[in-house]
Formats: sequence, C-alpha cells, structure tokens
Amino acid sequence: MDKINIKRLAEELNLSTSTISRALQDSYQIGAATKQRVLELAKKLNYQPNPHASSLGSSRSKTIAVVIPEVFDSYFALAINGIEAVAQAQGYHVLIYLTHERLQLEQEILHAFRSGRVDGVVISVSAETTSTAHIQALRAQGVPVVFFDRAADDVDTARVTTNDTESAYQATCHLIERRCTTLLLLSISRHLSIGRQRIAGYRQALTEHGLAFRDDDIVDCGQDPEANRELLEATLRARPGIDGIISTVEMLTESTYQACYALHRRIPQDVKVVSFYNSRSAAILNPSLTTISQPAFEMGKTAATLLLKALRNPKSTLVAENVVLPSVLTIRNSTASIG
Amino acid sequence: MDKINIKRLAEELNLSTSTISRALQDSYQIGAATKQRVLELAKKLNYQPNPHASSLGSSRSKTIAVVIPEVFDSYFALAINGIEAVAQAQGYHVLIYLTHERLQLEQEILHAFRSGRVDGVVISVSAETTSTAHIQALRAQGVPVVFFDRAADDVDTARVTTNDTESAYQATCHLIERRCTTLLLLSISRHLSIGRQRIAGYRQALTEHGLAFRDDDIVDCGQDPEANRELLEATLRARPGIDGIISTVEMLTESTYQACYALHRRIPQDVKVVSFYNSRSAAILNPSLTTISQPAFEMGKTAATLLLKALRNPKSTLVAENVVLPSVLTIRNSTASIG
Repeated sequence: MDKINIKRLAEELNLSTSTISRALQDSYQIGAATKQRVLELAKKLNYQPNPHASSLGSSRSKTIAVVIPEVFDSYFALAINGIEAVAQAQGYHVLIYLTHERLQLEQEILHAFRSGRVDGVVISVSAETTSTAHIQALRAQGVPVVFFDRAADDVDTARVTTNDTESAYQATCHLIERRCTTLLLLSISRHLSIGRQRIAGYRQALTEHGLAFRDDDIVDCGQDPEANRELLEATLRARPGIDGIISTVEMLTESTYQACYALHRRIPQDVKVVSFYNSRSAAILNPSLTTISQPAFEMGKTAATLLLKALRNPKSTLVAENVVLPSVLTIRNSTASIG
Repeated sequence: MDKINIKRLAEELNLSTSTISRALQDSYQIGAATKQRVLELAKKLNYQPNPHASSLGSSRSKTIAVVIPEVFDSYFALAINGIEAVAQAQGYHVLIYLTHERLQLEQEILHAFRSGRVDGVVISVSAETTSTAHIQALRAQGVPVVFFDRAADDVDTARVTTNDTESAYQATCHLIERRCTTLLLLSISRHLSIGRQRIAGYRQALTEHGLAFRDDDIVDCGQDPEANRELLEATLRARPGIDGIISTVEMLTESTYQACYALHRRIPQDVKVVSFYNSRSAAILNPSLTTISQPAFEMGKTAATLLLKALRNPKSTLVAENVVLPSVLTIRNSTASIG
C-alpha cells in the first residue's frame, strides 16, 4: 500500500499541499466545503498524520495539557472525564500532569511547555500557588490557558468555576438552621481565590445569623490524611463545644469521620458534618453525608470547550470571562435534626 | 539572549551535535561522564528542547501513553499516581486515554499511536477486549506495551498484576468461615483474564468447602450504577437465601449497599459483603467495608519502570514476564460475625 501523506491527498483532490494541511488542522482560512472534502478522503484512505512533522509546520501538536493538583479526588477524576470527552471528540490528545499541591512542581511543568509540546493548557492551580509568573510567562509565549475550579485572580483569562461563596454560605446556613452554633471550616488553601470565597460565604452566613467569626475556627489542613485526622482530633478535644464542621475538600471527610469516631462524638447528634464531596459513596457513609457537589464533569467540559475554541482561531484571544456553574446541596443524615 | 540549541551546546563543549543530541536523549551509546557534562551545561544555560524536532530525529517523543478503562475508580487513580511518579522522575510526559470499557475506542486510540506520537504504552484493557489484534499491531510497529491489572492472555509482553485468584479465594473462604452458604460474585468482565481468575478463586474456595458452584451465582454487571442496583435488587429479591456477596469492582459497592438498604437486608446480619476496593472511605461506610485492596500505586510504578527500562535501550525487548504484587484482605464490619 502506498503511504498516504498530505502530498497524496493533494494530488487526489487537485489542491495544494498547504490547503490540505490547513484543512486537516481545521484552519479558519479554509472553507467548510473544502474541509469536508479533505476530511472525507483522509478518512477513506486511512490517512494518519505524523504528529511531530505536522507540529513543526504548523506549531500545532493537537495536544492539550491538564494540570491538576491530584487525581485521587472525585472532583478531578470527573473533571478529567469532561475534558477528555471534549478533546476526544475534537481529535485532541490529553497530557495529564499532577502538581501534588506543590508550586515548584507546577512551575517546572509549565516551564517545560514553552518548547511547544502543547497547544494549550487547562489548569487548576495548586494549594501553594501564590505567585503566577509561571502562568503569565506561558501566556506571553502565546499558549492559551483556561482555569477551572481553582483560578489565579491576577491572570486575565477564561475561567470556569462554581459558586463557591454561595455554596459555603448555603452549607453554613444549613448547619445554623439545624441549631449548630460553633462551626469549624476545614480548608487546604486559605489564600487561593477558591479558599477565600468559601471562607467569605461561611463568614457572611455567621454574621447574618448573629454568630461571631473567629479566625481560629478555620482549620488549615494538609495533604496527609493521618496528620489531618490527628489535627482534627486535637481540635475537637480542645474545644468540646464544636457542633458543626464544614469540610471544603472531599478527602477531609474521612479524617473528620475518623476523628469523631475516635472521640465518640456522634454524627449528627453531637457534631453535624457537611462536605464538598463528589463521590457516589456519600449515600453509603456512616452516617450518610450531606454534600455540596460540584458540577465537575460539566466544568471540565466547559473549560476544554473554551480552550479548543480559542485554538481553532489563532487570532482570537481568551477574554477574562468567568463561567460559573452552580453546585448542589444534598441533605443527608450527617446533618439530621435530632429530637 | 541567544537561543540555546544543540548547536550552541556542541560549540561550548567542543562535541558534535549528534553526541549532544544522543546525550540529551540518554542514549546508551554515550558514556556517563559525557552525559553528565552535557546535562550540566544544558541546565546551566536553561536549554529547552523542541520536542517535535528532536522527535523527528530520534523517533523519540519522550511521551508514554496510559490507556485505562476509567479514571473514576480509586484503583486507576492510584495507579496513575504511580505511573506519573516514575515518568516525571525520568523526564517523560504522560498522555492519558480513557476507553470507557469500550473495545472500539481502545482500538481507535491504539491505532492513532502508530504514527509515532508515543514511545510506549501502559495499558489496562477494557471489559470488552476479547480480540487483541490492535495491541499486536502496535507492538509489530516497535512500540512496546506493558499491561497492568487487566492483561490480554495472548500478547507476550511484560505484565504487572495482582494475585487475583488467591484474593478471590481468600475473600470467599472468609465469607464461608463467617457461615455464609449462598455467595454471589459480582463481575464486569467474565471473559477477561482478571475476571476468569477471580471466578476460579471463588470456585476453588466453594469446592474445597463442599459448596456447589453455580453459574447463576456470577452476576454480570455493567457500567451504569443505577442499572446495577436494580439488577442486584432483583437478584436479592428473587433469591432470599443469598447471605454473602463478593464485589470484584469498587464501583459495585455502592450499588450493593443501596440494594441491601432498599430491601432492608441488614449488612452483615442478613448479607455479608466483601469488595475489591481501594478508597480510604472503606472505613467510614455504613457498615465499614471488608476489602481486598490492590497495591495500585506500586503496580503503576512497576509497570512504568518496566516500560521506561525497555525504552532506554532500543535493542532490548520486553519479555513475557509477569510481576505479581499481592493484594490485602482487611476485615471490617460488613463481614462481622453475629451473635
């Protein structure tokens, strides 16, 4: 079988090789009818592009990078599914990079992108990401960046987030309505936009209900589940009056439940718990968990759609728009009224 | 600032460009001392390779692909972490592809690799993967493939698995010792090697304890949690004598618990449950879950290590070795003895 390359496609269709090349790259310079003819023939002849050769010519790798703190969290797992669904449908490949919540690793990863390995980046920043020079530098080289979930405030680009302030407000109001008066908020990223918004929502709910906001009630957790459990046990032991906990990260739920079990604090009788949580296991926990669930799949899909749209037209730039998709409060037994 | 390219490095070190190029690619043709000199200068001058250009020259993309059925499962999430840890340490990039348990998608994904986008592939096959021509074809083109967890029997390459037969045997013996006599095995891939091995272990335990093996006791589940719950409800309703369930997939746990809740079958009093499960949430389920947990992170790490070792020396070929890492049974309340 003859090798099917761009030259062969050009001969068959009586078009120039550059037209074929642009059509295959879905360039805005080529009309829809021509694109259609080229793609149909390419499919019929089972044309397989040489990804590196075509990248050299067009500066397009047909690859996007997803940079996330962690994959062992239902939110990010669902978001990857959403990103991948869009990328696959549009013929893009997806590189996954984990920062493990470390700024230095995030900087190294983005630095390596400057050589042209990826066309664009979808990123949810690490808990340590206070400076954004690495993101700005990548954008300055013409690599578009879209944030999802965790955005950096000072980078003017598209972002897909959920209503974090309202969600934390809603969760806090729910606990207050269930007669909680001393509420902890568990956080892993107090300085990030997402962390600040959740604290703001929590604070607003307390204030509106005449309860005091105390900085001590914000518990800064880390990445190690055992260390988090010990921290929570110590906090609950030192402050027996705590009767409500809002966990802003899925993985903190397990540490919270374990700390309560160990101290024989009954959920929901002694302490009520609500968590940002996306796994289906919420309904079979002991007790079943009241959750704020984020539209993770949709957020991933939307972020990838915005990025690929920008890549299709190199003259377009991503504007600083913020797409906000709402989260949902689902009430279960961990916040049930007693008696 | 001058552009730092291979030519510049060659001039500075008084070496040929091909030596620089090979040293940067960690070629076995270049001595350790020379590699060291080249890498130190490259780092000092902040050299960034053009990934596509260097790929054309060396047929190396410094990229590996991870092809998995799903990312929304703790096993695969942990395995990705293991793969990524090894790849990152050795300067490789990781492309992730999800097959969503569909053979056709797996075939398309592997077909696209033939154009040279990736240097090697780590794969856990889909539940539908009965034919392996697509895997054989990729290997025939010189792209090494390593299996992890779910391997195809008829492809002679390295594979990293866990002791599936023994684990299912152990889980079944445990339930029989806890006086269960009518045991369901929930499966999603009866024809895969992994599915067959788990059924074999289950069958062996039944036989050794004088219990009958019935094909009806193997329940073939699918990808939809709601449909699985309905199937399990119908099965439990039709067969009130069932007193033990072995779930071979993490995601089936939720459907199993929900089906038991709906029918007021108490776990563990009426039905005892053990599941292949890797999430830390096992300990906070209602009731806490007896688990077979796989060494997912280690399996991912080992698979990536084998692949990258093969890539370092192009003359080496992956032999049909099988690295078996043992799973662990952890007994919790879902199989507690009653009275």
